[in-house]
Amino acid sequence: MAEQRKITFLPMDRTFPAEESESVLETAMRSGVHINASCGGNGACGKCRIKIVRGSVSSPIHPKIAQWEYDSGIRLACLTRPLGNISAEIPFESQVDKAALKKKATSPRILSVTDLDKLVAGWSVNPSVFKKYVELTPPSPEENVNDLERLMRELRKVYGVKAVSVDFRVLTKLAAVMRHADWQVTATVVLTSKGYTLINVEPGDTEEQNYSIVIDIGTTTVWGQLLDLAHCQVFRRVEGEDGGTGLCTLAEMADYNAQISYGEDVISRIMYAQKPGGLERLQEVVVSTINGVIRELIEMSGVPVELISHLVFAGNTTMTHLVLGLDPKYLMLSPYVPTANFVPPVRAVHLGLNVKEHVFTYIFPCVASYVGGDIVAGVLGSGIFQRDEVALFMDIGTNGEIVVGNRDWLTCTSCSAGPAFEGGGIKFGMRAGKGAIEQVKINPSTLEPMVLTVGRARAAGICGSGLIDLVAEFFEAGIIDQNARFDRDLSTNRVREGESGWEYVLSYAAETHVGRDIVITEADLDNLIRAKAAIYAGCKTLLDSVGLTFDHVERVIIAGGFGHSIDIEKAQIIGLLPDLASEKFIFVGNGSLLGARLVSFSRELQKEAEQIARTMTNVELSNNHAFMDEFVSALFIPHTDERAFPNVMEMIRGRKEQLPANA
Amino acid sequence: MAEQRKITFLPMDRTFPAEESESVLETAMRSGVHINASCGGNGACGKCRIKIVRGSVSSPIHPKIAQWEYDSGIRLACLTRPLGNISAEIPFESQVDKAALKKKATSPRILSVTDLDKLVAGWSVNPSVFKKYVELTPPSPEENVNDLERLMRELRKVYGVKAVSVDFRVLTKLAAVMRHADWQVTATVVLTSKGYTLINVEPGDTEEQNYSIVIDIGTTTVWGQLLDLAHCQVFRRVEGEDGGTGLCTLAEMADYNAQISYGEDVISRIMYAQKPGGLERLQEVVVSTINGVIRELIEMSGVPVELISHLVFAGNTTMTHLVLGLDPKYLMLSPYVPTANFVPPVRAVHLGLNVKEHVFTYIFPCVASYVGGDIVAGVLGSGIFQRDEVALFMDIGTNGEIVVGNRDWLTCTSCSAGPAFEGGGIKFGMRAGKGAIEQVKINPSTLEPMVLTVGRARAAGICGSGLIDLVAEFFEAGIIDQNARFDRDLSTNRVREGESGWEYVLSYAAETHVGRDIVITEADLDNLIRAKAAIYAGCKTLLDSVGLTFDHVERVIIAGGFGHSIDIEKAQIIGLLPDLASEKFIFVGNGSLLGARLVSFSRELQKEAEQIARTMTNVELSNNHAFMDEFVSALFIPHTDERAFPNVMEMIRGRKEQLPANA
Repeated sequence: MAEQRKITFLPMDRTFPAEESESVLETAMRSGVHINASCGGNGACGKCRIKIVRGSVSSPIHPKIAQWEYDSGIRLACLTRPLGNISAEIPFESQVDKAALKKKATSPRILSVTDLDKLVAGWSVNPSVFKKYVELTPPSPEENVNDLERLMRELRKVYGVKAVSVDFRVLTKLAAVMRHADWQVTATVVLTSKGYTLINVEPGDTEEQNYSIVIDIGTTTVWGQLLDLAHCQVFRRVEGEDGGTGLCTLAEMADYNAQISYGEDVISRIMYAQKPGGLERLQEVVVSTINGVIRELIEMSGVPVELISHLVFAGNTTMTHLVLGLDPKYLMLSPYVPTANFVPPVRAVHLGLNVKEHVFTYIFPCVASYVGGDIVAGVLGSGIFQRDEVALFMDIGTNGEIVVGNRDWLTCTSCSAGPAFEGGGIKFGMRAGKGAIEQVKINPSTLEPMVLTVGRARAAGICGSGLIDLVAEFFEAGIIDQNARFDRDLSTNRVREGESGWEYVLSYAAETHVGRDIVITEADLDNLIRAKAAIYAGCKTLLDSVGLTFDHVERVIIAGGFGHSIDIEKAQIIGLLPDLASEKFIFVGNGSLLGARLVSFSRELQKEAEQIARTMTNVELSNNHAFMDEFVSALFIPHTDERAFPNVMEMIRGRKEQLPANA
Repeated sequence: MAEQRKITFLPMDRTFPAEESESVLETAMRSGVHINASCGGNGACGKCRIKIVRGSVSSPIHPKIAQWEYDSGIRLACLTRPLGNISAEIPFESQVDKAALKKKATSPRILSVTDLDKLVAGWSVNPSVFKKYVELTPPSPEENVNDLERLMRELRKVYGVKAVSVDFRVLTKLAAVMRHADWQVTATVVLTSKGYTLINVEPGDTEEQNYSIVIDIGTTTVWGQLLDLAHCQVFRRVEGEDGGTGLCTLAEMADYNAQISYGEDVISRIMYAQKPGGLERLQEVVVSTINGVIRELIEMSGVPVELISHLVFAGNTTMTHLVLGLDPKYLMLSPYVPTANFVPPVRAVHLGLNVKEHVFTYIFPCVASYVGGDIVAGVLGSGIFQRDEVALFMDIGTNGEIVVGNRDWLTCTSCSAGPAFEGGGIKFGMRAGKGAIEQVKINPSTLEPMVLTVGRARAAGICGSGLIDLVAEFFEAGIIDQNARFDRDLSTNRVREGESGWEYVLSYAAETHVGRDIVITEADLDNLIRAKAAIYAGCKTLLDSVGLTFDHVERVIIAGGFGHSIDIEKAQIIGLLPDLASEKFIFVGNGSLLGARLVSFSRELQKEAEQIARTMTNVELSNNHAFMDEFVSALFIPHTDERAFPNVMEMIRGRKEQLPANA
């Protein structure tokens, strides 16, 4: 729409395109230009000063900038937007040594969910819950067949929909609706493995008003989308942070899973479920979270609840058990047996969900105790089941689930990464919500940070992607060693011995939302290293189990709770992701929600999902000695076997040579 | 067991076999020997005096018999049982003119439900709800398939039961039951048109404990039986008044349908359902009646409610709608359209029934607004769908439903008979319960009655079979004419002008349970004549519609609310039943319950029932001019067309000649 803007950063004289919506700080972060900033990008710290030396900008007067400074072109980069091409000078305190900068300015590959167009091929919009409008001939003394048969007959005749059974509840209103609507009604039909079932009848023609809600039930977060099933010719993805605006996705919404009060991870939830009333309580609270999401989706979209015809749920095996009220006890005890992997469609009101009585919930099938419907949904959404190439699918969260395979075979495993990637077990860890530090750079010369928060709010904590950035930057800048221990002899106040041991201060109290210094401790680093080691070791062990190595992997699909982006290079530096060419990586964000959406749109893909769940083999890692060995080997940055990370090691060596000797 | 006893009645010197359990009065009634008795057979009136002149009897001393009379052999016939062959003299006041007696003593054909052995051929016990015991291999680290699949796999392997879906509610207890039972469990599976569904799992081997309850939901009465599905090799019928004692039927129980408070017949129920809250109320009260029956059956049989696996309901179309909570409004309005004829199996607790949550209710399919599942069940139970011969099936109640057909075709109709056959609209009418006069003879000389009541209790009223007897006897004795008007000039006090017009006194107040004279009025007679006319006209019109006459009918099957027996000859005399050879008649009693029982035992017969409902064609009699003409012609005893009743007319003529001129 607007012409392309460019920002030339001085004194290094490097020019980068600027997105219209971006602040100068955001463009700098994206382009690898360091500008000190520790509040997250909202003017609180006042550190991200730049001087506009060419071009015009939109930038408010701000208490951190004196009038005489403002007059001379000084601005805060986080609050400044270019109105055309501009040149901005970065003050000395933000500047990075030129030699280091040169390397940093190679385009880093930050993947975002906007990359996942058409991962799945060859499907059309053909929902398993559909509506058919019929105009019936009224009964007469000569032809007085019963109401139900009159409707069924027409469905057979006009649409070829045969052998339809009926949900009993439809009958209670059938006679009245037919007559009040003058025999012109719309039938809602659901197709399951048991055939067609008539689940609703509405007066008049409502064929064009058919909506579904898909829910990803995460251990931490519940995501939902409201879909328009009747007006989707082409699959449209959700763009941007504010959720769906496409024809198909009318609203998107997330909330914390209220079960969090009863434990951070699935194991603690399973433990809680063993208390008297615990299972019932966990079922109630997750349903109450889902009901909140449904309510918001309905409000946001303006779609009346009466027109919601279908629910699709995907969750890990524990969440699937809990939302259904099934005791998850045996998921936790060897030999780790779920009650059921395939659950029949359940009437939504039976679970306590606030939709109409005729709505059924399709539950994604699970594979094993720790490979659930969310992974089946992710595998479906990523399309790896359709391709010849071998792909590695990773859902990185508290539990790391990993799938390897192609159109001919699929094998999977899971490993407990701990909650670090979702901010758990980290002193100032948090989910990727407002104020979460999600991107970090460290000035390798001054060791000052540049941080951006979700929503550019005052920093409140740090989320998974921020942690990965941070550890990689620490390592590259020599702030930590390969064991993730702080260098005790650095010339910066930011590394200090705090109450919890050695730490680095990301944001000082006054700049934050929480009123305390936001720090990263060595204990935090240990947690993150353990998490990344578990994921990497899981991938390695799974590949070994099928006689493959990372070199056989032609595509890596990353799903999980990193917010909206992940920096592949940073994740490789810390040894979380394998050292493969960045082109091989795709980030699908919430793969579970993606798959749930596909299943809601397509009955063929629903069958595919079931086929995936039925054929995928599970490799158990608990008590697996090979896995334990791999795990221990990975407790190092990037890895004890440096040959596994040749590109990372080369880059690190190159940088170290370029860096001034801080130590 | 005991040797055959014989009673010789004097002075006519006729000898009849006596059942061991019978009183002399009962043997006399069955044998056509008149003994005055107006209290019903319990000693209250003291009229049924006899003198034992040979043999020994068991008979109490009674206040109505003076000691000197007792010493001379005088007894009350109703309280006397022979201990061997006896001779009993009937006193003068009870004696019937010999000439009349001669004719009466031809053996009348009283049909009872003990005649219905093996009406349906070629089926075996194979319930659609069945249990299978399995011994599962416990899961191990090498083989940790989920609990449900473990069970399903075994059902496939051991029993060949494939493609079983699961009722969601089973899952909530599956894991615990399997483990507590050490992997030895019994699965309850139901087979429907949608295939197999697993509905329950129990610890240990309960294959031998599989029970069902079948319910006939009548407009007036709800009948229930509790069946043993696991131990029935041969089909056993219920014998005697106290209900089932066979291997299969563990208990039988009936109660008034509590909907009676809201109207006697289906039309008044439908009207009530139109009031605010009326439909809900009617649904609740019939369910509460059914729950009472279920509770009693469980108490009587001692079968724990946990072991009841299935319910089968049969009812007319209105009752079927009401028990399901479906508005019956359009059953009553032209063109008389039911909401649905085929209803899917409904979870019993969903209807408010007090059985376990896993139990489903099979609802017999209906044919039309006034031909319901009870008739389909009756047709099934009578076996007419299997035979080459043309049969006429009649269910005689408030609504008369009639079916004609054979293995190749079935056609049906219904006509409103009014409630007379169930005691409704009759001044002292009542259902065939305790104290209901069910058999009546009139001494053609003295015009004194001989009555037997249900349970031989003091008379409380008169039921359908008693009314038919009575009208036939009135007519034969010349007490009424062909228009059912009392002869005003008879030499008996029993015919008198009462507060409701002319009437006949059956029992005087002191002999009754109700403390009032029990009478039959001309208005009562009119109601009965209208009822019999409707039934006969319905049969005639239905036969006409398929080009047949009564002569083509090779078998007549009579079902309905007559208690336990019907006197075919009496019913022919009044023109209710066609004038066919008595050998052609079969009385099946509660045909609906019979069919429901068969369906509970046999999945093949369940399919047959559905086939019957699907193929039977319905002839609508409302606004049918031919029917109206036939009805008017039938408002006469036996009929205006005397050629239609040649045997009856001949018999009447013969008797009239033999009778002394009373008039």
